[in-house]
Amino acid sequence: MHNLQANAVDRLAQLREQMQKNGIDAYIIPSADPHMSEYLPEYWQSRCWLSGFTGSVGTLVVTQTEAGLWVDGRYWVQAAKQLAGTGIELQKQTHDPNSTYLAWLSQNLPQHSTIAMDGDVISAQLYTQLTAQFSANYQLRCDLDLIHLIWSDRPALPKATIYSLASQAIATPRHEKLAQLRHALKQKNMQGHFISALDDIAWLLNLRGADVEFNPVFLAHFYLDTAQTAILFVDVDKLDAQLQAALAADGIQILPYDVSKDILKTLDITSLWIDAAKVSIAHLQACPSTVNIMREVNPTTLFKSQKSELEIENMRQTMLQDGIALAQFFAWLEQALAAKERINELTIDERLTAYRAQQNGFLGLSFATIAGFNENGALPHYRATNDAFAQIEEQGLLLIDSGGQYQTGTTDITRVIPIGEPTAAQRSDYTLVLKAHIALAQTVFPEGIAAPLLDSICRKELWQAQLDYRHGTGHGVGFALNVHEGPQVLSYYAPITAHSGMKVGMITSNEPGLYREGQWGIRLENLVVNQPMPNANTGYGNFLYFENLTLCPFDYRCIDLTMLSASELAWLNDYHALVWEKLSPHVVDDAKAWLAQMTAPLA
Amino acid sequence: MHNLQANAVDRLAQLREQMQKNGIDAYIIPSADPHMSEYLPEYWQSRCWLSGFTGSVGTLVVTQTEAGLWVDGRYWVQAAKQLAGTGIELQKQTHDPNSTYLAWLSQNLPQHSTIAMDGDVISAQLYTQLTAQFSANYQLRCDLDLIHLIWSDRPALPKATIYSLASQAIATPRHEKLAQLRHALKQKNMQGHFISALDDIAWLLNLRGADVEFNPVFLAHFYLDTAQTAILFVDVDKLDAQLQAALAADGIQILPYDVSKDILKTLDITSLWIDAAKVSIAHLQACPSTVNIMREVNPTTLFKSQKSELEIENMRQTMLQDGIALAQFFAWLEQALAAKERINELTIDERLTAYRAQQNGFLGLSFATIAGFNENGALPHYRATNDAFAQIEEQGLLLIDSGGQYQTGTTDITRVIPIGEPTAAQRSDYTLVLKAHIALAQTVFPEGIAAPLLDSICRKELWQAQLDYRHGTGHGVGFALNVHEGPQVLSYYAPITAHSGMKVGMITSNEPGLYREGQWGIRLENLVVNQPMPNANTGYGNFLYFENLTLCPFDYRCIDLTMLSASELAWLNDYHALVWEKLSPHVVDDAKAWLAQMTAPLA
Repeated sequence: MHNLQANAVDRLAQLREQMQKNGIDAYIIPSADPHMSEYLPEYWQSRCWLSGFTGSVGTLVVTQTEAGLWVDGRYWVQAAKQLAGTGIELQKQTHDPNSTYLAWLSQNLPQHSTIAMDGDVISAQLYTQLTAQFSANYQLRCDLDLIHLIWSDRPALPKATIYSLASQAIATPRHEKLAQLRHALKQKNMQGHFISALDDIAWLLNLRGADVEFNPVFLAHFYLDTAQTAILFVDVDKLDAQLQAALAADGIQILPYDVSKDILKTLDITSLWIDAAKVSIAHLQACPSTVNIMREVNPTTLFKSQKSELEIENMRQTMLQDGIALAQFFAWLEQALAAKERINELTIDERLTAYRAQQNGFLGLSFATIAGFNENGALPHYRATNDAFAQIEEQGLLLIDSGGQYQTGTTDITRVIPIGEPTAAQRSDYTLVLKAHIALAQTVFPEGIAAPLLDSICRKELWQAQLDYRHGTGHGVGFALNVHEGPQVLSYYAPITAHSGMKVGMITSNEPGLYREGQWGIRLENLVVNQPMPNANTGYGNFLYFENLTLCPFDYRCIDLTMLSASELAWLNDYHALVWEKLSPHVVDDAKAWLAQMTAPLA
Repeated sequence: MHNLQANAVDRLAQLREQMQKNGIDAYIIPSADPHMSEYLPEYWQSRCWLSGFTGSVGTLVVTQTEAGLWVDGRYWVQAAKQLAGTGIELQKQTHDPNSTYLAWLSQNLPQHSTIAMDGDVISAQLYTQLTAQFSANYQLRCDLDLIHLIWSDRPALPKATIYSLASQAIATPRHEKLAQLRHALKQKNMQGHFISALDDIAWLLNLRGADVEFNPVFLAHFYLDTAQTAILFVDVDKLDAQLQAALAADGIQILPYDVSKDILKTLDITSLWIDAAKVSIAHLQACPSTVNIMREVNPTTLFKSQKSELEIENMRQTMLQDGIALAQFFAWLEQALAAKERINELTIDERLTAYRAQQNGFLGLSFATIAGFNENGALPHYRATNDAFAQIEEQGLLLIDSGGQYQTGTTDITRVIPIGEPTAAQRSDYTLVLKAHIALAQTVFPEGIAAPLLDSICRKELWQAQLDYRHGTGHGVGFALNVHEGPQVLSYYAPITAHSGMKVGMITSNEPGLYREGQWGIRLENLVVNQPMPNANTGYGNFLYFENLTLCPFDYRCIDLTMLSASELAWLNDYHALVWEKLSPHVVDDAKAWLAQMTAPLA
């Protein structure tokens, strides 16, 4: 038995012992931290530590007799492997409400059982849902961190230095953002506001950090009221004297990261605005019962989603840099393949990252590179590891989904290239996905329309062939911040809320795909920004279009031109002309030759 | 001053007097009956009686100093005319929450005011919303029908005979439907179920009536439990002895229409299922407080939305009849126009209805015919009246939206024809709408997808030109029942609920439009039915397509063929070939010649 699996068996036994001591019948361990982050500091990776499952999302539920890990479709294969022999059952979560751990608990747990969890890593929203569903039949507790009792060598919290956003990328000074936020509170008659979302805090303060992989954020909570108070709860050692002074000058007090709940307990206000999806139930329960709580999306989430013209211009420049690195990389790859060099999926990541690293202001990757050859490309969230990776050889399709964090922006792009001669079926699939990509790219749409409502325009061509893909078509993208950012989600799976509307300046990915299990995967992704159409005064309000930000050709060798309409072909040639115009002055030699070949007009 | 306006002034004064006597500061008068019907018996047309506004939807709110009528965009012109001089202000309701009467009351009514309404004509859902919004600042009462105190010559309730659905149209016998409904209750652990929705009751009992215009329903409430009890609350005089016996044989007791609340008061069950959007707050409040209420869409609403194969086959036959009548009508119209006969919008309605009336099983119209010439066509809900109608002469576009109720189905179709030679702008607009219609008609989509998510496929071409239309693209259609039926609504404006999913057998309209204020209006409408695609086993579940039910050509004289893609043209020619194949054996002379000309292949 593998070490990790032996660990899981042992740790599960220890947890059950603690559960018994504390009178707990079921313990819930989500993939979460007190900020409801996508990437967790090791300190909060308790679900991974306990189960051995290394995927990014999954909820572990343990009773005295059973243990289950609920994961969505992208992780079924991986989880099945990693859970084998642990005594933890893989539970396949789908869109069916009966497939959730909530349904499982309802069906399997005897009445009057006690369900517990660590309130620090359960959002106020989720706890409300659990209460609504379970309080009639079960006892619920959120005051028990049983993991802490058994995780003896639990890692420390990260200590990365906090730095200021590059001056050329600062569209709005910190004190103006604070004033804007206080104005939003006053408009809703709220006195105080507590933020735990790390990207919201980073955006608000024009600061960045490196406490987790990929997202340039730092661990912090933030409180402000409409009067004078503004408190940053953060490890002060991460801030140099200059930054401390700058924050103080803007009226921001610095308190230790771990006293946020204590301060909330002493709140002397009547009303507090929190984003219940982004604040832990432990923090909410710390507030005095006299404080009237309003649960609403953070104003900062909405503010930061609408990029300013300066930010968009920075993004255009960043895309130029990213495009240069990509052209250099692809030119190298073509040469290496032609020379029959031994290349595997890990090589792809290394070389592509190396080219990006040569660019000014490069900080790191914006997420773990997905380089999936053939059947690995058919796993939308595949990640090659040192233990398991494929050689890139013979014939097939190579999918590369990658992105960079730069001081002046965040990138995210997926391309698919042929290894050897692509088959007719591969070209047909590629072209279908390209048609879907172009359909969305060409769309003009009413300002404010809920993003999920645009998804069917993208998928229509795939649906026509009774095909689809099991992921969203687009996610919001941060500015020199998280590559996944709300509020807009361009996916027909996504719920529509009051904040789903498409607004000017939002940056979103356009990434339809098609996955043939065991064969190949295709995904074609650009980032686009919502721009206003010139007003046509048609009496039907304002319309938006997508300006393309990403600069990298689509591989003509994979395209079946007979499947493209005249309008689609024109879009493609226009796009390639733009890519050539922007990138060609900045690349030389092989990269320039590659670019010329890849952007030549198609007919 | 017009009579109606003098009436309104007088009645408003009487209402205010009653309000003062009863200590009421604001009185709400919706357009509703105790069944939340679309068409109201005269008895419940109190908003119309009081205000003089004859439109179908609008809410009147009266205080001692102000009176406002909230209506949506389709009625702004009409309401402005009809309210002039009444002292009632037109309030334009839009999608903006600030434009509602709820917002107006919040802003204008002093704290501690008393707001009252007649609980018989306010849904439980609306009252819950009013309570949530107002109970903190206002007193709410729903036990006062002040209208009854001042409407001395209030009309009686209708007395139309109830009849059995035609035997060839009965897919499922009544006793099976009752068993199916009881099964649905048991699945949710509910003991009782109370239905006020008239079309649900008509569907459940395989009965039809004629108590209101256009919808073949009868006034009734229905109660059943999972044991033996089933009660139809109805005026027994409407049922002949044979029907009474048939209902009794199926275990259905008949009680007077007006005792439904009294019986609810005596309920001896622990749980009751109601559709809060379709049951009045007065009925809900009649239930003993010991009864646990579950608020969920009626199972019958979902059952009846999925038409059986027998019902669909009946609809195909009915569409054949409707198509014959339409061909005869359009052939007559062409002749009459060529002969320079004097034709106005009312003539259109008369002649078209006369042709439909010649068809077997014709019962009446499924809604008031909309025949709008030029600028009148630009009002999506226009209705010509004896006081105001247009002559059809010179040049322009004539929009005709009409439908019939037959014993074997319900139809709803919109066509636009040119009078004289259409202009390039008119042909461009027509073709844009046709492209939108075809885009939706051709769509293949995942089974169960929420209907609103398909709307962008239809509107895309219009959006591209920064155009749109302010109504839904499609509504569900009943089988020999209401022409507007839930739960599916194909509109990006519509909220997405758990019951928005597209399922096999649902019949929906496909009716994009384009309206040039003061010039012309275009709407092209067919009914379509969701059919399963042959299973392609692609691993992405089941897909549906729309089978076209409506049989009537699109007018080639309005089409700019250069704007159609090859695929759109092929769809149009295929459709016209189908129309010719189905209808031509059943028409002769002028109608056949017209059909041949209108369905000839286009290239």
